[in-house]
Amino acid sequence: MKIQVRTAILGANDEVAGVNRAVFDHLGILALNLMASPGAGKTSLIMATLDRLPPHIRPAVIEGDLASRIDADLIAARGVPVTQINTGGGCHLDAPMIRAALPDLPIESTDMLFVENVGNLVCTADFALGTQRQVVVASVPEGHDKPYKYPAMFACADAIVLNKVDLLPYFDFDLDYFWHGVELVNPRVPRFAVTCRGKQPVQDGGVDAWVAWLLDTLERGH
Amino acid sequence: MKIQVRTAILGANDEVAGVNRAVFDHLGILALNLMASPGAGKTSLIMATLDRLPPHIRPAVIEGDLASRIDADLIAARGVPVTQINTGGGCHLDAPMIRAALPDLPIESTDMLFVENVGNLVCTADFALGTQRQVVVASVPEGHDKPYKYPAMFACADAIVLNKVDLLPYFDFDLDYFWHGVELVNPRVPRFAVTCRGKQPVQDGGVDAWVAWLLDTLERGH
Repeated sequence: MKIQVRTAILGANDEVAGVNRAVFDHLGILALNLMASPGAGKTSLIMATLDRLPPHIRPAVIEGDLASRIDADLIAARGVPVTQINTGGGCHLDAPMIRAALPDLPIESTDMLFVENVGNLVCTADFALGTQRQVVVASVPEGHDKPYKYPAMFACADAIVLNKVDLLPYFDFDLDYFWHGVELVNPRVPRFAVTCRGKQPVQDGGVDAWVAWLLDTLERGH
Repeated sequence: MKIQVRTAILGANDEVAGVNRAVFDHLGILALNLMASPGAGKTSLIMATLDRLPPHIRPAVIEGDLASRIDADLIAARGVPVTQINTGGGCHLDAPMIRAALPDLPIESTDMLFVENVGNLVCTADFALGTQRQVVVASVPEGHDKPYKYPAMFACADAIVLNKVDLLPYFDFDLDYFWHGVELVNPRVPRFAVTCRGKQPVQDGGVDAWVAWLLDTLERGH
């Protein structure tokens, strides 16, 4: 019974996700679903990305939170079109929420849509939004064992961004162990190690490499 | 329909939670449900607590994770009775899981039972386990806005532990803003600021103050 209800809910969600996806594809929008634990730095990554996008790329943002407009206000202050979804306690965004939010954005003149999901390393993985790419943001303070403890999330990712690597000196974080855990569930996933603070150079390119991947994905028509 | 199913599931859970609670009360066990984001430091807090409990207090631990035995192995290495629940993808522990796990522990000779929930700052708040105290562990790297973004979790807490305060110099974390957010949803909740690494003194007592609260709660018969 429980499983039947779950299947029915996910089926209805997938149908709307398909509609969203068709809208994004039709308009040539690259839509990204950013998922992470609370406080991993999804908003910071979006802001660092916005700062580095070339001027001809037109971004928009959907912010998902249980409550508050804190993140949407941060994005709006940058002059980027943004709308806030408050789930009112719900632990994830779903496709109908995205569909309802789209009229609040100038999607006909958008190239890249960042959807920041609710901070939740479990439930968000289950609900397709219609975005073409799912991105998992992990962060150094959470610890290197997360891919082993939350395998479904890391398995569903089309890209994995490890954030806050400037803090590696202050944590017992074994990078090899972390990426090995990713490897076990998602062998060929593109991976980025970044810091969104300041301009610290990062060995593998940091936010710049991530932005290059976004632009390349957009260029190649997803 | 969705709401009815949800109500029925929660009702069945509450019934089993009531049984668990009766067992804990009957045996004089103080049972604690530790909830947090992934990587906030629940296991570290439990280990720092175990190191400071007086010898006559007999602890036991239930570890909840989607997958892996990483945390249970850490606790077992300290010689403390522990059992691991793997939810197999489930985003929270529930009362029947706890009921099924109790026979794996020497509960007749346990004074304090730590239940480490799945790392999830949303869903875990909805499911009573039968524990007499619900504890929310927040951490500095997650950011000071968490009580505003996840109000239900902070509202349900009987105690709030802010972990990793040794990292305050490396983050833009406004302690007053954080505790004000707590104040808004849970005005008189006992609060502790701790670090579980090394022996750094913490202004308000750190882990020692937290352990004193636990012992006092146990003493007063919860």
